[in-house]
Amino acid sequence: MPGSAQVDHTAEQGLLASDGASGPWWRLTTRQPVSYEVRVHPGLLDPADPTLADAGAPEQPRVARRLVVVESTVYELYGQEINAYFTGQGVRHEILVIEAHEQVKTMDTVMTVVAAMDAFGIVRRAEPVIAVGGGVLTDVVGLACSLYRRATPHVRVPTTLMGMVDAGVGAKTGVNLGHRKNRLGAYHPAVATLIDRRFLHTLSRRHIANGLAEILKVALVKDEALLELLEAHGERLIAERMQAHGSMDDGVCAEEVMRRAIQGMLAELQPNLWEHRLSRLVDYGHSFSPAIEMQALPELYHGEAVSVDMALCTVIARRRGWLTGVQQERIMEVMRAMRLPSWHPVCSPALIGAALQETVRHRDGHQRLPLPVGLGQARFVEDLTGPELDAALAELRRLGHLRKDIAV
Amino acid sequence: MPGSAQVDHTAEQGLLASDGASGPWWRLTTRQPVSYEVRVHPGLLDPADPTLADAGAPEQPRVARRLVVVESTVYELYGQEINAYFTGQGVRHEILVIEAHEQVKTMDTVMTVVAAMDAFGIVRRAEPVIAVGGGVLTDVVGLACSLYRRATPHVRVPTTLMGMVDAGVGAKTGVNLGHRKNRLGAYHPAVATLIDRRFLHTLSRRHIANGLAEILKVALVKDEALLELLEAHGERLIAERMQAHGSMDDGVCAEEVMRRAIQGMLAELQPNLWEHRLSRLVDYGHSFSPAIEMQALPELYHGEAVSVDMALCTVIARRRGWLTGVQQERIMEVMRAMRLPSWHPVCSPALIGAALQETVRHRDGHQRLPLPVGLGQARFVEDLTGPELDAALAELRRLGHLRKDIAV
Repeated sequence: MPGSAQVDHTAEQGLLASDGASGPWWRLTTRQPVSYEVRVHPGLLDPADPTLADAGAPEQPRVARRLVVVESTVYELYGQEINAYFTGQGVRHEILVIEAHEQVKTMDTVMTVVAAMDAFGIVRRAEPVIAVGGGVLTDVVGLACSLYRRATPHVRVPTTLMGMVDAGVGAKTGVNLGHRKNRLGAYHPAVATLIDRRFLHTLSRRHIANGLAEILKVALVKDEALLELLEAHGERLIAERMQAHGSMDDGVCAEEVMRRAIQGMLAELQPNLWEHRLSRLVDYGHSFSPAIEMQALPELYHGEAVSVDMALCTVIARRRGWLTGVQQERIMEVMRAMRLPSWHPVCSPALIGAALQETVRHRDGHQRLPLPVGLGQARFVEDLTGPELDAALAELRRLGHLRKDIAV
Repeated sequence: MPGSAQVDHTAEQGLLASDGASGPWWRLTTRQPVSYEVRVHPGLLDPADPTLADAGAPEQPRVARRLVVVESTVYELYGQEINAYFTGQGVRHEILVIEAHEQVKTMDTVMTVVAAMDAFGIVRRAEPVIAVGGGVLTDVVGLACSLYRRATPHVRVPTTLMGMVDAGVGAKTGVNLGHRKNRLGAYHPAVATLIDRRFLHTLSRRHIANGLAEILKVALVKDEALLELLEAHGERLIAERMQAHGSMDDGVCAEEVMRRAIQGMLAELQPNLWEHRLSRLVDYGHSFSPAIEMQALPELYHGEAVSVDMALCTVIARRRGWLTGVQQERIMEVMRAMRLPSWHPVCSPALIGAALQETVRHRDGHQRLPLPVGLGQARFVEDLTGPELDAALAELRRLGHLRKDIAV
């Protein structure tokens, strides 16, 4: 019996039955096949383009009904277009408009979506729910779909950079539980995530920077070339909101940054989608940031808290000699250039210490802390001590920079 | 894009990346390995037996902390023993006692369990939550565990016959949504289900009959020998509450009935644990019963509603000539002998018609209605018409019997 929580990945599938000493005994072994796609597709709301209307649904019969959940700001900006799109595609649709930000990322909001699905009388698998909004919106809708009939398909249309390169790419859905970030959730990837960079042209520069923080994460742990792109073009990507204004080069650069970021994320996720391994490179920036973000709410965006966490881990790594002073300064500089903070006043030794304890519980009793080793690589450590953490924190307090307010 | 909701079970696992006409495109394909055990194990609460204390946890280090969720009636009867057991095993434990019946099978109750897990500060994978109670209790705890950190392990100790042969054997967890039975949930099997028939000796006869309904289901669709056991011993199994009172033969018979029922269920579930196929033999008795049960609440137990549904499908099948009159009468007779109803006054044509519509939505637009063909076999139909259903219902109204109150 001990060890039965450990799944043997090589085990034969099937039903093993035997008569133990105490009575009959069975072991059921199986595998759940999962497949999903992420697609960059400009012109998603072009009424002549069936891509969005058909996504994730069986070809025949074409079921012409959709429930569309849209974040309220997105609805103000694109509601008319969204309605015109589905009408143009001959799809009977209902639109549920909801607010979506960290303070309402709760089970109550999930239940609002669930109630709309129930009222819509959604068919089990042929009518994927379409979620249009940022990462909070797609996380909430994803969880509602996971719960409703234990798995209703959904399609994500992320409208923020964070949604396009991070929340929209993986399998995780979730909501906060009190001040515990994403403590409740499910692994339930969208059958399709459709990315149209055009939504970013109405996004604030701060939100672009927010998404670039997750891109910087991928760059720091596994893609030095991506880091160089961010160093060379980060400021301009924000100013131009990842659009192809001006020269062709800019457009190509924004697309290349996004392509590398998504590729990097998906390559990390594919062999470990359900986090059987809890040592995850993509957890870089996510060891201390949940506590920082929830404590500072609503002041810091998710990516900003991640940035502070990455800065702290950068200092820890440099103090160990795994990064040079010059490399540390490059990281701090690209954060400054992309308007991302490397410090926040809530980062007391007590908060950061408690954050590490909570992360250890989340990583099943181990630190599994990813730290950078040079640029574009990382390793996991188990031996971070309280004094080492406090010393790095004190150093970061002196050299870190706060978030500067930037105009919309 | 169309058809992407269909998972190709033979697809290679990996990350496919390409440049489509519109931009980069990825398909991620993987499989989630799942393995769990069901074990008949008398003497579970023997303080010298580590089976329950160690279930589902890694061998080293032995983490001696458990959150135990116990149904309130079970706690009255076995609370002292449960406490003594974990104390005897040197396990620091907290016990959460909750009510668990259909009216409180809700997301609110799930959130009560979640709050207790959070207060306990549960470690991610080394401290499985232990659920002790009937099917409602284990379904609710299973869903809480599924949500908390997107998958916390749990161990089930079913204390009802329904829990032992049905709710405790599969992967499904769930709660009701208003009057929609088990509309919200997750596939999240317990790492181990441990079955001790001793709990049944304090169960009411009506609850034993309730569990026998699910056993009768397995018998009717796939195991004629099990049907013969129920015909020969059903009444006595109830009277003796599945215990081995009197002769050795009785004990062997109760164990054999349970073994065949669990084996039959697991064999059906193993190749289809996530219900990729929606034509499921184990749905026999579960096409009309969700509406019957929720409408009649709290008057009918789950198994009683299932029994009425099975009776209705029996009549439909006999009218088609797939069962003889004698076979139909055998089914009605075993139901009578086991104190299971074959009729309830809520079964109006309107309710039953609406039930079928809802079931069609649940089966993704198809009836996929399992009907018996002789005894111990079944087939799926798509062509049940309203008039055919009404006629069978009218016939059952005449020949069916109500639940008779039986003494505790």
